[in-house]
Amino acid sequence: MKQYKHVVLFTNTEPKGGAFVSADNKMAEVQAQALYTFEGDTENGELCFNEGETLTIVQQDVGDGWWEARNYLGNVGLIPQAYVEIIEPPEPSFPPPPPPMPTAPTPSHNGWGHDDGGGGVIQSQQSVDTWDDDWDDEDDDDQSSTSTGGAPSTSSQGQNELHGQGNFGLSQAKPKRDSMSASSPPNTGYGTVKKSFNRFSQFAKAGGEAYMMGNFQGNVSEADMITIMETSDGPEWKPPDQPYSCSVRSPKKESKLKGLKSYIAYQITPSFSNIQVSRRYKHFDWLHIQLENKFTCIPIPPLPDKTISGRYEEEFIDQRMKLLQLWVDRICRHPVLSKSEVFLHFLTCTDDKKWKQGKRRAEKDEYTGGKFFRILQTPPVAMQNGEVEAKMENFCKFQKNMEENTKILSAVAYDHRKKHLGPFKREFQKLGSAFKALAGTFNLDQGPYSQALTGAIDHVGDTYNDIGDLYEKQPRNDLEPLMDTLNEYRGILGQFPDVIKVHEGAIGKARECVKQQAEGKMQESFVQGVTQRADTISFGTLAEINHFQKSRCIDYKQCMTTFLRGQIEFYCQITGKLEAALQQVENS
Amino acid sequence: MKQYKHVVLFTNTEPKGGAFVSADNKMAEVQAQALYTFEGDTENGELCFNEGETLTIVQQDVGDGWWEARNYLGNVGLIPQAYVEIIEPPEPSFPPPPPPMPTAPTPSHNGWGHDDGGGGVIQSQQSVDTWDDDWDDEDDDDQSSTSTGGAPSTSSQGQNELHGQGNFGLSQAKPKRDSMSASSPPNTGYGTVKKSFNRFSQFAKAGGEAYMMGNFQGNVSEADMITIMETSDGPEWKPPDQPYSCSVRSPKKESKLKGLKSYIAYQITPSFSNIQVSRRYKHFDWLHIQLENKFTCIPIPPLPDKTISGRYEEEFIDQRMKLLQLWVDRICRHPVLSKSEVFLHFLTCTDDKKWKQGKRRAEKDEYTGGKFFRILQTPPVAMQNGEVEAKMENFCKFQKNMEENTKILSAVAYDHRKKHLGPFKREFQKLGSAFKALAGTFNLDQGPYSQALTGAIDHVGDTYNDIGDLYEKQPRNDLEPLMDTLNEYRGILGQFPDVIKVHEGAIGKARECVKQQAEGKMQESFVQGVTQRADTISFGTLAEINHFQKSRCIDYKQCMTTFLRGQIEFYCQITGKLEAALQQVENS
Repeated sequence: MKQYKHVVLFTNTEPKGGAFVSADNKMAEVQAQALYTFEGDTENGELCFNEGETLTIVQQDVGDGWWEARNYLGNVGLIPQAYVEIIEPPEPSFPPPPPPMPTAPTPSHNGWGHDDGGGGVIQSQQSVDTWDDDWDDEDDDDQSSTSTGGAPSTSSQGQNELHGQGNFGLSQAKPKRDSMSASSPPNTGYGTVKKSFNRFSQFAKAGGEAYMMGNFQGNVSEADMITIMETSDGPEWKPPDQPYSCSVRSPKKESKLKGLKSYIAYQITPSFSNIQVSRRYKHFDWLHIQLENKFTCIPIPPLPDKTISGRYEEEFIDQRMKLLQLWVDRICRHPVLSKSEVFLHFLTCTDDKKWKQGKRRAEKDEYTGGKFFRILQTPPVAMQNGEVEAKMENFCKFQKNMEENTKILSAVAYDHRKKHLGPFKREFQKLGSAFKALAGTFNLDQGPYSQALTGAIDHVGDTYNDIGDLYEKQPRNDLEPLMDTLNEYRGILGQFPDVIKVHEGAIGKARECVKQQAEGKMQESFVQGVTQRADTISFGTLAEINHFQKSRCIDYKQCMTTFLRGQIEFYCQITGKLEAALQQVENS
Repeated sequence: MKQYKHVVLFTNTEPKGGAFVSADNKMAEVQAQALYTFEGDTENGELCFNEGETLTIVQQDVGDGWWEARNYLGNVGLIPQAYVEIIEPPEPSFPPPPPPMPTAPTPSHNGWGHDDGGGGVIQSQQSVDTWDDDWDDEDDDDQSSTSTGGAPSTSSQGQNELHGQGNFGLSQAKPKRDSMSASSPPNTGYGTVKKSFNRFSQFAKAGGEAYMMGNFQGNVSEADMITIMETSDGPEWKPPDQPYSCSVRSPKKESKLKGLKSYIAYQITPSFSNIQVSRRYKHFDWLHIQLENKFTCIPIPPLPDKTISGRYEEEFIDQRMKLLQLWVDRICRHPVLSKSEVFLHFLTCTDDKKWKQGKRRAEKDEYTGGKFFRILQTPPVAMQNGEVEAKMENFCKFQKNMEENTKILSAVAYDHRKKHLGPFKREFQKLGSAFKALAGTFNLDQGPYSQALTGAIDHVGDTYNDIGDLYEKQPRNDLEPLMDTLNEYRGILGQFPDVIKVHEGAIGKARECVKQQAEGKMQESFVQGVTQRADTISFGTLAEINHFQKSRCIDYKQCMTTFLRGQIEFYCQITGKLEAALQQVENS
């Protein structure tokens, strides 16, 4: 039902707005104004409201980007936090971001919480705060990062410039679910990808239009360049000279302010240096924001869900560490991200002062948003428009299809895992108990001819009880790794619509310019420049799609291998136990 | 809830009463008089009535010994057919039998119909007719057998003689469930076995009292004798000199009256002659009646359920053949039954005329009912009463316990089988479909790096679909043979309460006589005779219990072996399929 249930990675661009909320998220009820109309699912406890309506926020720590609110009729329900604005905020200086629809506030289990609706994991700045309240403090260092991070050139002015036809589709100021799903740009759209707005609006706001129109001048230093090669499979990122890996290990509870604030620090060791650095979740989060801001055509995998709470502490930390390891692995394997200055800074900096310097440098990176495409070094050929669009159309279909099927396989695996933990286990233990009860009866006959068999049947009972336990333990060896991979891919797939939208917008812009040239309103040389820059975006986008597809093959081969090996091992263990039981029966 | 839900093997002793009903079991509504009070389970659609009440029989072909009736208030419900008597029957010459409680009228599945109530399979003359109507005709031969079979000396007079204290507990003329379950003879009862009346009343009516009181005189020929030996495990039937087996094969549809009537004939070949004889179900049924009548202390396993109907014809016939084979096997393995003249006649007679002669001879067998004990040749020692009672008490506990646990294991196995056929199969095929759908998505990427993996994942999908099919097919290799054995034992266990009751009655009678001797009302020599005859019944009963226990060990060892081998083979098949799938993934 929920059209907006996609993964939203971008953070709120006015962090102060988020910060004041999290400063005391259990404060007294406050008033908020609805920025957008929300047609909530009242059956699931959501509250509907119209744009402009005033709501009373009853509770802000619901999680997953949801708040609890009361409307003027006194009805209480859940509302997506991003749809409203607190009235009289301390620094109400920025316009709100386009509304990402948070996931339903169902608790996750072990990180495999499956939602049948639209899937994905919401990660907004607010939910960071919600989570980190338990673990973390806001130190000076981080506050400065959140207030100066993101895209510094963002302004409402920049956004307005882009409104109108062909302007990257940003005309939908008041998104409603139904109108959203129905609207797809008739001219520039080559696909049927689900709409999302954050990444794209980021691009648009951060100079996408300006880049396309050639407003950025000057040379890019060789060191900053990212090379794209033409191969038989199409454009590809230049592979790294020295691939490396990183381990995420040894989560340590650390504290500051004389133990008043505590947090978990993970120890990260890159293979190229073997020097350990200590990083907190918020550092990951900061890194994630930088990667998002800079690599406009690269879907950055979401960080593990921040809002898992109320879990057994150690289990939660271990699970998060495992997911952070997967995340770091994926960045390390990416030919562009793994070489990026900001990631290497994150992996290697051990000095506090240098950390802050590197942090500021990253936050001031010139080549983010639209300007990112300036640093792409593309093959010296022109793109064939028809070919690009055919490829993009096929990938859109692929993305949509894979998102759907991954969701289904996730759901099946989640269900199957749940059956392993409960019904299957119980089923075999019922069989075990019944055999043991029969052995109990047979034990009433103390005849010498009877006792060995009685013991053997009792052992059969134990065997089925053990098999029940095997069922319970098994998912961690096959289903859970499978689900981890599926979940990673759901996250990545959820980023692609924004990447596609950027490309779509660029193609649309180039077309518009060609049309204006035909009408004599633009010069040929200028339009050639626009077309070239659209080609650069095509190269970047196709290189990333190529990387995605090849990674997918490697990852799914790996994940199917792990899954099947786990399954084989499982059935072999069962067989082994049954063979032992059979032997005892035969010897009885 | 149902106290009477035990297996009832004995047939109605006034076959005419049953026959006239079956002659037209869809005739117009008739009146019937309640012979006993019936406190039915109204929630299960049963109708309560009092002794003497007049009921209108609405439907007679409900099956399993149940009819549908309407009482004077207009309430309609199910009633046990044996509790009522049709008013104005054509030949109302015999009194009705004590009321066996039929099983609930739930349809059986494949012969493993599981009833959670009390278990067991009802086999009354009526249900034979119900079933055989479809298959069979009543030829002269059979009619004569049913009218002259059973215990010819039965009379209401004989029954009344036995009423009163110590008289085999037959005083409960108006059995009510609650009073039934609560009443256990305070003096003679050594156990807590469920009560049933047919076998016991049969014994009582067929000369039990007369036997105990020494009313039968004359010598028994050596050829008729059945020898009981004393062994370290207690009394045992003398083992057969030449054990043999029999095959039940090749069911053939035969017909008579120029094809107007058709029936199935099974070909039976005993190993000692290797000469095939052709027998119909009704011949089995006749044989069963003879065995029941004669072998008073031997629980005769019930024949396969007669009332399975509406089944696919071939499947039904094969299933019945399989169960008849199990039944014949069990009789063949019994040291006494396998040597009995009537069984050998059944197995060997190929000549029509000789068949009728042997049939009449069996029906006129002198040593049935109470007189059966006259042909037992026991070890020349006196029984230790305390020891016998301890053994019987232990066995009663065993019987009750095993009946209960067999019921539970049956229920678990039945459920597990049902899950194999449905939910488990679907579960794996859901996984299969999800993998295949993912392969379908991956197939949209025609990159050469992708296709081998896509094919491998598609094969993984096929593999899980195949595993689903394996789940569906598996029960016939493990659960169904297990359930067959459990079902056989449920049938046999259901016969034991009658056997125990006969023994209990004999012990009670002997005690009563000893008491009367102490009071000077009986002579010592007479009471010694009574005690000896009680010992004979003890010997027979204990020999049969010993046979049961040793058979149980053999049967359960066999059945557990079959079950575990089936399970091992199953998991090996799954492993094999998964290994093939893994290899394809690894090679991709």
